[in-house]
Amino acid sequence: MFPKDTYVNRRQQLMADVNDGGLILLLGNEESSKNYKDNTYRFRQDSNFLYFLGWDQPHLAAVIDPESGETTLYGDDLSVDHIVWMGPQPGMREMADRVGAKQTAPYKSLADTLANAAASGRKIHYLPPYRAENLLKISRWLGQTPDAVENGHSVPLVKAIIKQASYKSAEEIAEIEKAVTISGQMHVAAMRSARAGIREAELTGIVEGIAIGAGGDVAYPVILTINGQTLHNHYHGNVLQSGQMVLGDFGAETATHYAGDITRTFPVDTKFTARQKDIYELVLQAELESINALKPGIPYRDIHLQAARIMADGLKDLGLMKGDMEAAVAEGAHAMFFPHGLGHMMGLDVHDMEDLGEDYVGYTDTIRRSPQFGLSALRLGRELEAGFVLTVEPGLYFIPELIDQWQAAGKFKDFINYDKVAEYRDFSGVRIEDNVLITEDGHRVLGAPIPKTVDEVEAVRNGG
Amino acid sequence: MFPKDTYVNRRQQLMADVNDGGLILLLGNEESSKNYKDNTYRFRQDSNFLYFLGWDQPHLAAVIDPESGETTLYGDDLSVDHIVWMGPQPGMREMADRVGAKQTAPYKSLADTLANAAASGRKIHYLPPYRAENLLKISRWLGQTPDAVENGHSVPLVKAIIKQASYKSAEEIAEIEKAVTISGQMHVAAMRSARAGIREAELTGIVEGIAIGAGGDVAYPVILTINGQTLHNHYHGNVLQSGQMVLGDFGAETATHYAGDITRTFPVDTKFTARQKDIYELVLQAELESINALKPGIPYRDIHLQAARIMADGLKDLGLMKGDMEAAVAEGAHAMFFPHGLGHMMGLDVHDMEDLGEDYVGYTDTIRRSPQFGLSALRLGRELEAGFVLTVEPGLYFIPELIDQWQAAGKFKDFINYDKVAEYRDFSGVRIEDNVLITEDGHRVLGAPIPKTVDEVEAVRNGG
Repeated sequence: MFPKDTYVNRRQQLMADVNDGGLILLLGNEESSKNYKDNTYRFRQDSNFLYFLGWDQPHLAAVIDPESGETTLYGDDLSVDHIVWMGPQPGMREMADRVGAKQTAPYKSLADTLANAAASGRKIHYLPPYRAENLLKISRWLGQTPDAVENGHSVPLVKAIIKQASYKSAEEIAEIEKAVTISGQMHVAAMRSARAGIREAELTGIVEGIAIGAGGDVAYPVILTINGQTLHNHYHGNVLQSGQMVLGDFGAETATHYAGDITRTFPVDTKFTARQKDIYELVLQAELESINALKPGIPYRDIHLQAARIMADGLKDLGLMKGDMEAAVAEGAHAMFFPHGLGHMMGLDVHDMEDLGEDYVGYTDTIRRSPQFGLSALRLGRELEAGFVLTVEPGLYFIPELIDQWQAAGKFKDFINYDKVAEYRDFSGVRIEDNVLITEDGHRVLGAPIPKTVDEVEAVRNGG
Repeated sequence: MFPKDTYVNRRQQLMADVNDGGLILLLGNEESSKNYKDNTYRFRQDSNFLYFLGWDQPHLAAVIDPESGETTLYGDDLSVDHIVWMGPQPGMREMADRVGAKQTAPYKSLADTLANAAASGRKIHYLPPYRAENLLKISRWLGQTPDAVENGHSVPLVKAIIKQASYKSAEEIAEIEKAVTISGQMHVAAMRSARAGIREAELTGIVEGIAIGAGGDVAYPVILTINGQTLHNHYHGNVLQSGQMVLGDFGAETATHYAGDITRTFPVDTKFTARQKDIYELVLQAELESINALKPGIPYRDIHLQAARIMADGLKDLGLMKGDMEAAVAEGAHAMFFPHGLGHMMGLDVHDMEDLGEDYVGYTDTIRRSPQFGLSALRLGRELEAGFVLTVEPGLYFIPELIDQWQAAGKFKDFINYDKVAEYRDFSGVRIEDNVLITEDGHRVLGAPIPKTVDEVEAVRNGG
């Protein structure tokens, strides 16, 4: 938890930005049930609640009143029965004091608070609920259908949060650096432990164990697969075989819930094959040149397109694409090989503030999301500003189902050499990803360096 | 997944047991969101869906019609867009064939199926929803409030499932043995890695890594703590110190989702202190004598009370209790030291079928749950039968908050020697737990043996 002033200042800014006579409701998360009510996943607090109230326990809520300037923390002190099972916890008054909230109130009194406010004509600003139990609660409190609640969230509140949380403070950047450094240890462990004959799940256990061992958890479901061409592949049942590559996209979340998001791709053998190296070097070139171009004022969409162009040129050199690569990228032909975006904002969420709406976070009134396949998956298109933390993660993939679909439709046959592509059908995919802070005069790659060049990766695979 | 006939036979039995003209609705689980919709926890299928339909993917449902004898599997084939992100999956028709379901239908058509059935007066049998998103779905489909849905689940369906799922088949027992054996490896790894100066989280990472590495996950939130007196302690931020004990209550869930549930307690140093050994031996005696007494026909409540009596007698020998121990146990005085139950059923859920209602699983019309503190926490009280799999997990604890409360109230002062108890105030707790199958003529402890005697535990702590 950060010092009290951090939370007080954030809430004061929020009150200044959402000052229309309404009340601001911030709901913490509840425990999340797996296979029965009391068998729960590891608790994950709502990131907005963490940002403004700090506390990492279930069954808390806050009402922030911009008119009075006061924050009330809703929750319940524990009974001895609860202490026997769950252990002692700080009392509500202590929790409120620690983050500068003036009042506390029992959780169940929140229903009356909201009903009274609504009856006196005050708007209740709440965020889009991404967990059904919070949706249900709001529905019961406000006497509205779940559908109405989903549509009734506060856009002014969303915008006010994005307005401040997009800029990471020094204390936040320090936490993200910790997360990236732990993430790097996870990747090196995977590289060191991999060998032909081992199951993906075994490596997954190793990397998740490191994240948990550091006092946090993984920041998102681990991708660790010989089928890197599947972008969000969470299946870990395959056995590694000589000649294959492993794509690992995983990162740690620290105890304070800041995320790291790193991708590395390495050979199951101790060296890349010549063909693997060709593609790997191309993705690496795109990643390094993208990072080098990062600075305030430049739209991230331009960096994405520059990376696409670098990779398309390289694919042409390899005979996989043909024709005018400027036109190919403008029309989206490269997206068969690079169907996702170059990156996204990071912070308390690995896709930072995705619950608030990706377009509010990553786009503006002047830079809007493209509907074109590939570019449409770019989560961050807007001009960069100092204080943003984001991922840079180009990749090249050979996705049999997508190739078949495009070829059957005769799609971009002037730009794609399908005969040559057929030779790469079982190649899988390569992605390389780092996390970068935009500074006043450029950028800084966060965390301790993680092996990335062909030589560095092969050195680790050879026991280095 | 088991052979097709396993699922066909289970559903046939279910249809025979719920044959009142209604339809049976079994809902699979959805992905569960952490901090935004698409950042999800590791998917956990509903256990009832696994039991009757086998498939381990989100967004599936089944309608079983006892009148026609037919099962319809509801779900959606993947688009190429989904395949790009999530990878190829078996088609709906293949999934239905694999488990002997006659028909498939798009997920969204379930709304009409249920509306039509309800309109024609057929009852919809559904289970108590423990996840809010499934509650919301049923609410929308049936046009009922969430509260009405919660109260409207089918008791005949609950009872029919418990009637068959309480008896584990040979193929299920083999899976539980696998889970227990992996759980044992986790415990030995924790014992081997522990030392003064290491953080609980680091050991937690090691044991969770093993469960994930084996292709599954932990079966329930890991308890691994120097504060074993907190029964469900999930805090892992403490640093182990010489003189303390570590209580580890954790187990693996296999890839097929059968659970292991093992507890061991060991010293941070390489040997127990004399005081620790006294309490440990007492709990061990209760555990071993409880296991020895297990056989069909005996009420588990009697075994619980026998364990309580053994431990109360030992506490009296140590000067912690006094007076007539038969009366003390009858009145519940021992429960200050042993406030939980001796065990519970196990299977696809670590507390098997807890979602269906603990009293339906663990009690009968003739053996009902006691309201007495301690005994009221016993999840399984009924007569044992061959095929049951259950935990045996006695423990002794010194819970400062509970001691203070009882002493202040003058509770059981004729049975409890509070002056002596004060000397043990910082002792923490000891629990020892194994998993046992009830056989036709007795019982069998499942899985490979896990170090348990003082000598065995100390041997591992000494590098053995």
